Amino acid sequence: MRELFGFMDEERVLTSPEEILTYSYDATRHRSLPGIILRPVSKEEVVDIVKIASREALPIVPRGAGTSLSGGPVPIKGGIVLDLTLMDRIKEVDVENSLVTLEPGVIYDGLNKALEEYGLFFPPDPGSGKVCTVGGMVANNSSGLRAVKYGTTKDYVSGLEVVLSMGEVIKIGTKARKSSSGYDLIGIFVGSEGTLGVFTEITLRVIQRPTDFATARVGFTRMEDAGRAVRKIISAGLRPAVLEIMDTHTLRAVERYMGQGFPEVEALLLLEMDGFDDGVKKRLKKGIRLCRGEGAALVEEAKSGEEREILWKARKASLPALARYKPTLILEDVTVPISALPKMMRAIGRIGKKHGVEIATFGHAGDGNLHPTLLVDRRNKEELQKAERAMEELFLEAIELRGTLSGEHGIGLEKKDFIGLEHRDAMELMRGLKKVLDPEGIMNPGKIL
Amino acid sequence: MRELFGFMDEERVLTSPEEILTYSYDATRHRSLPGIILRPVSKEEVVDIVKIASREALPIVPRGAGTSLSGGPVPIKGGIVLDLTLMDRIKEVDVENSLVTLEPGVIYDGLNKALEEYGLFFPPDPGSGKVCTVGGMVANNSSGLRAVKYGTTKDYVSGLEVVLSMGEVIKIGTKARKSSSGYDLIGIFVGSEGTLGVFTEITLRVIQRPTDFATARVGFTRMEDAGRAVRKIISAGLRPAVLEIMDTHTLRAVERYMGQGFPEVEALLLLEMDGFDDGVKKRLKKGIRLCRGEGAALVEEAKSGEEREILWKARKASLPALARYKPTLILEDVTVPISALPKMMRAIGRIGKKHGVEIATFGHAGDGNLHPTLLVDRRNKEELQKAERAMEELFLEAIELRGTLSGEHGIGLEKKDFIGLEHRDAMELMRGLKKVLDPEGIMNPGKIL
Repeated sequence: MRELFGFMDEERVLTSPEEILTYSYDATRHRSLPGIILRPVSKEEVVDIVKIASREALPIVPRGAGTSLSGGPVPIKGGIVLDLTLMDRIKEVDVENSLVTLEPGVIYDGLNKALEEYGLFFPPDPGSGKVCTVGGMVANNSSGLRAVKYGTTKDYVSGLEVVLSMGEVIKIGTKARKSSSGYDLIGIFVGSEGTLGVFTEITLRVIQRPTDFATARVGFTRMEDAGRAVRKIISAGLRPAVLEIMDTHTLRAVERYMGQGFPEVEALLLLEMDGFDDGVKKRLKKGIRLCRGEGAALVEEAKSGEEREILWKARKASLPALARYKPTLILEDVTVPISALPKMMRAIGRIGKKHGVEIATFGHAGDGNLHPTLLVDRRNKEELQKAERAMEELFLEAIELRGTLSGEHGIGLEKKDFIGLEHRDAMELMRGLKKVLDPEGIMNPGKIL
Repeated sequence: MRELFGFMDEERVLTSPEEILTYSYDATRHRSLPGIILRPVSKEEVVDIVKIASREALPIVPRGAGTSLSGGPVPIKGGIVLDLTLMDRIKEVDVENSLVTLEPGVIYDGLNKALEEYGLFFPPDPGSGKVCTVGGMVANNSSGLRAVKYGTTKDYVSGLEVVLSMGEVIKIGTKARKSSSGYDLIGIFVGSEGTLGVFTEITLRVIQRPTDFATARVGFTRMEDAGRAVRKIISAGLRPAVLEIMDTHTLRAVERYMGQGFPEVEALLLLEMDGFDDGVKKRLKKGIRLCRGEGAALVEEAKSGEEREILWKARKASLPALARYKPTLILEDVTVPISALPKMMRAIGRIGKKHGVEIATFGHAGDGNLHPTLLVDRRNKEELQKAERAMEELFLEAIELRGTLSGEHGIGLEKKDFIGLEHRDAMELMRGLKKVLDPEGIMNPGKIL
């Protein structure tokens, strides 16, 4: 296949067995070998590659950092993995309009570092922010800890340059803050997981970086009380910037991992307010008061930046701590309406017990986005099967509760078999959309639909 | 045509000449007679109507209150006007999840009145809020005075039930606060101006109603200083809830209309902060300080609710005051990046002079959305032609400045001939989308594309 791409520098065309292997997986347990890896450095190269792929009917799988938790970048039909990490220039910071224009391979944390000197930031804050690319975030409508206040990636995309499946390039969006001019094409591409086109340029609307923070950790001896406290905080309009939950399984893992003791609680909330003045402290006090009203057993308030760091550390350690337990973590992201949070928490416990699978749960309680994490060993077939059955039940439960299969990770391979349960009659329209944009089906085939 | 719709109550099928005339126009100068007006009361009726229209190849034009400023509801190909104002039930207020589910004919102000007792509100605040329907707002992605802080209608739509062009019904969206599950179908329908389907149920995410307000009016002797003040206020992160501008033409008209004198200023800003505590006052002070820095000649701060009302009155009177001048107002809504606001203001002056058309400008300065209002008499052909040439230049200028043809009114008939200038290569995709959803072209034909 190499000879097709002679126009690219040789070192950006990868075909050795170890390279092929490296690009065969993401952060899930799914694996499949690509035929070739191409690392373009410009829109023009992407266009040429897509044209060849279209002519040769080769699948193209766009890929950022490969941190996906849905199997999205796994090339299940072989073909080309399009590694976009070399396209990593920040092209323009337009301070006056609060817009930044960049290539898809820019790293999330790197972007925010670059924006710092302007007092701006791009808030969605995915857990993989240190390494994930903005292109991947747009493709998956990613978000994370701060979505409860700041929304998800789609709330920030104001312009896209997209290479479509036949090699046509379109530029969509505007620099204006709002528009009612024709169909909202940006919305179609955000969250499309590489199945509708390749992003070569992204314009994000960024916002003022908050200057003031107030942070606390609140423990509950009963999970349900924590769930109720979350609901109260949200419906009181306190606009927390962060409202995270960790269950007792996660806490015990973190305890062992960090050597830091936690009191005997069933759930721990991490609550942070942010803003531009002292109001943040008042709002935190109100939040804590609401927690006490629901029977909080423990309240630790950060008195300094260092103390804030300490409170954050335990939350950030959740995933690595759990990863020590078992070789395979299946990190789910079912998301339910806030009112259904306590029900979903209970369902997770019930489903884990029923199938004999250990499930630790943490996540973004404030927006109903939980990460029930199934701890298994994928080499143990029986265990894996049990886990898959448990997952299936988690999905059904979330849909039953009027929630969604994925809050922030996307559908990819992982939930493809279930998407029809959520979207029912609308599936035909999704398939129609795919057909218009990718009539030959070469763009990341086998994902979402 | 009446006999086709025998399943509907007779009084909800309108065919008399005066009724036909009544439904031949919106708030623009465009006019065209429909064949029949149908006023369904349920999804089932809408489905039956659409199926008949599809079978008989009859155009269907969905219509709310007819307040459109783009010609959107004008039935230029005749056929059926589908008056949805009888479908006006608020079906559910889900306080805990801050969601409200309603039929498309609910009036904007009525919805907010109903939400008041729960401390909630739906913020986009279009100028026609007293009479316009939520369905029309969703169809046009409408907004208004509060969009600068709260965004536009699309930021609030979390679920839709849509009757597609062959009579199929789809339900899209989720009750969860975020989702990365498949293509964002809601985004396709919001702002589609009735060209892709008929909404029969809408679920909106609503938010906490602010309790504290701080309002001021600031006058500038030079338009450019006002433009700069707006840019400063926005980029300082003060998050004004309202940041309106009125030019000297508008002010003189309001003066005569209200019998209230204004000092000699070239531009007046209305600035309002809102929130949940005293912080609003501090932010207003900061805003005023920034205005003084740009040479504000006049500052009036509201000391009470009554004084706030007085400040608001002049802004609210802009349109009726201007309407007294001339029989025909052409209210434009070109929108530019904030940084281009002073340039656009200058261009409006230049273009008006060049074509000998009186243009008064007011609008939502804070998000770059201006309403240059052309004062003409549509019975005077020459005057109308001049105005149309001036409008064309306004459109070109906005696009040149990387803005958009419409910030909140939609494309409809009014800007259909220009949309290609804004979206260029993306037009084909818009046409493809239309084709998938409405293969026979019966849904509001001749609009947008």
